[in-house]
Amino acid sequence: MTTSKEILQAKGKEARASSRQLSKGGAEAKNRALLNLAELLLSEQGAILEANSADCEDAQANGLSGTWLDRLLLTPGRLEAVAKDVRNVAALPDPVGEMFDARVLPNGLSTGKRRVPLGVIGSIYESRPNVTIDIFSLSFKAGNACILRGGREALRSNKALAEVVWQALENNGWPRGALQFVEDPDRSLVEAMVGMRDYIDLLIPRGGADLIRYVGENASMPVITGGVGVCHTYIDRSADLDMATAISYNAKVQRPTVCNAMDTLLVHSEIAPRWLPQIALEWLNAGVQMRCDRRALSILAANGDEALQEATDEDWGKEHLALVASVRVVDSLDDAMEHIEQYGSGHSEAIVSEDYSAAMRFLDEVDAAAVYVNASTRFTDGAEFGLGAEVGISTQKFHARGPMGLRELTTYKWVVMGNGQIRS
Amino acid sequence: MTTSKEILQAKGKEARASSRQLSKGGAEAKNRALLNLAELLLSEQGAILEANSADCEDAQANGLSGTWLDRLLLTPGRLEAVAKDVRNVAALPDPVGEMFDARVLPNGLSTGKRRVPLGVIGSIYESRPNVTIDIFSLSFKAGNACILRGGREALRSNKALAEVVWQALENNGWPRGALQFVEDPDRSLVEAMVGMRDYIDLLIPRGGADLIRYVGENASMPVITGGVGVCHTYIDRSADLDMATAISYNAKVQRPTVCNAMDTLLVHSEIAPRWLPQIALEWLNAGVQMRCDRRALSILAANGDEALQEATDEDWGKEHLALVASVRVVDSLDDAMEHIEQYGSGHSEAIVSEDYSAAMRFLDEVDAAAVYVNASTRFTDGAEFGLGAEVGISTQKFHARGPMGLRELTTYKWVVMGNGQIRS
Repeated sequence: MTTSKEILQAKGKEARASSRQLSKGGAEAKNRALLNLAELLLSEQGAILEANSADCEDAQANGLSGTWLDRLLLTPGRLEAVAKDVRNVAALPDPVGEMFDARVLPNGLSTGKRRVPLGVIGSIYESRPNVTIDIFSLSFKAGNACILRGGREALRSNKALAEVVWQALENNGWPRGALQFVEDPDRSLVEAMVGMRDYIDLLIPRGGADLIRYVGENASMPVITGGVGVCHTYIDRSADLDMATAISYNAKVQRPTVCNAMDTLLVHSEIAPRWLPQIALEWLNAGVQMRCDRRALSILAANGDEALQEATDEDWGKEHLALVASVRVVDSLDDAMEHIEQYGSGHSEAIVSEDYSAAMRFLDEVDAAAVYVNASTRFTDGAEFGLGAEVGISTQKFHARGPMGLRELTTYKWVVMGNGQIRS
Repeated sequence: MTTSKEILQAKGKEARASSRQLSKGGAEAKNRALLNLAELLLSEQGAILEANSADCEDAQANGLSGTWLDRLLLTPGRLEAVAKDVRNVAALPDPVGEMFDARVLPNGLSTGKRRVPLGVIGSIYESRPNVTIDIFSLSFKAGNACILRGGREALRSNKALAEVVWQALENNGWPRGALQFVEDPDRSLVEAMVGMRDYIDLLIPRGGADLIRYVGENASMPVITGGVGVCHTYIDRSADLDMATAISYNAKVQRPTVCNAMDTLLVHSEIAPRWLPQIALEWLNAGVQMRCDRRALSILAANGDEALQEATDEDWGKEHLALVASVRVVDSLDDAMEHIEQYGSGHSEAIVSEDYSAAMRFLDEVDAAAVYVNASTRFTDGAEFGLGAEVGISTQKFHARGPMGLRELTTYKWVVMGNGQIRS
């Protein structure tokens, strides 16, 4: 009998073999497959939406709630958006083959680094079926095979999407093996997958904090951990107060459920009495609940604002993912940076300030994937930063930090061309 | 009672704290400390050599053999070389602060990546005491603190070297905590160290294959695995045969004990009858033992050469680290590349060929840290490749591949400067 684990190992082997073929492929052939995939996502949407309906019905029957169900749901509009993303990936420049750090050594050896695919990308993710297409298209464009293991509740949707990918691969002369789809919903396969360092060169967990923690702690291969952002915006005493309001409002309200949204507002004590009521009013109108330290509370209570709570210890360092903000009054830039060092997750941190030295110190001393002066942390995103797309946002320091695009799914090799050089 | 493990944790905390101070330091202040260290290595050589003599005497008493003892030994000449390396590191450009991928986004945000230190570098190494100074000086120049755990047999030597480092740090206003030296020879501390992911950002094992494998499999933080090189040189049928001889001789003989030396020679069957006797003669004179496949054996036996053995299965994929070469006759470029894929360790691989298409295919298709046309694999080295120095040679694909210099001991952060931008 073949066990689930043996099937997974076989998929690993097949992915590895396919990755060799992919690494030889040119951009044009890869783009043809991607554009075909975008077409098929629309022309085959009947089958995809039907599979998705079945998943959604079961999920509802199993009592899945609003947000969760919404993550699972595909619609013609959402498929159109997914297809558009695939076309965008096709339009991006191919990172593979790029030469950099090229030079001729004194002995005449011509050396340089050539960008090459990593090999096989693995991903373990939860309910969103669009991740299937997302990770595949970015991995494939960067010349990598991938092994995908989606959420059990999205199994039929993911399988229908995988079918479309396989069709696009076959239509364009690529091996089907470039996409390995793990159908078996057995949880023990996650365990098996994190141990497959011979077959997976990089593992990307996408989903809740528990999944990301589990993968980070147990994976035997490199992992991109990220997705958790405890983001601060510090309003310096020198801040342009209208700008501070606009940035704080945007960072908290524009899309509160994502990792680059503001979690904690830090306000310098000199301007807190004047400015806190201003942002509190804006936030009140948007339905933001404020979890304030005592000093912020006393300022706002004096103004009669009642959508306030006293912050508990857990509110510092908490990723709210909702219209909730922790608020603290600090006495200096140093106090603000110390707070960020203690509670931040190394994602995105901002200062609003007109003081040149304070702004520069913040950029220099705050240790995070992205540090900002006078802008909303909401910009930490592959598309916004000009990478075209992203597989995730890394909050680790190794290999890649911040938004990870195509280039971050590659490695390089040293290419050395000589005419008989030997070492003396 | 404070346990060894608690002491190690305390060292981790102190390293982390020191790394923050280091990350703020400028190149000039770092270089001053390095140049002072180079001076002290010479002015304090009495104490260092005395400690080293004690280590060497004990090692001899414990029956340590020639090569091992030689690795442990420091002499005035070797200390001079170590000091010179430190001065070379001081002379290298500081990687910290370098901006790259800078651009102004359409919304006016000025973005870019700024190179910053990784934080804390850990290293576990064996007998060579010079590694203490090596890893410290490179880590420090790149703005990192380090935690070093050398071999038990070199304890007194390493401690004397650490004393000199601390003196140089103190003399120049840097925290002593920038170098944490693990004195306790208890083996269980290696286990503790590989689990300290909160305090160590990158772990570098330096030593034998067993140590490297242990660290690679057990470390909870990123590790640079490397140092094991099973390197092939393939002599194509189109090769310039004199060049083939010169390169093969150099790759095998010039320094056989290092990872970029040739282990296996692959020869195209069309030229093997003419050329193999040529290299065999040169190698014979240099004392190289050849482990040949049957076809190579029959060619060479016909020429009456007797310093030959038949290769066993273990000879393919073996890193000889000695004047021994595995030799195999292949019928095509494809066969050569297949052999390399099966047995290579992803370190350095070379083709000798005058055939343009064969050379390009080799560069494209062989997956290794360094791929060569018409040159000796012995060049895979940080200094040779123009990095100035190296902490090691990575045979993994993540973060850095091949020789790792100062830049590879850093990461980056995204720096974003705006004037009130918010996301719409």
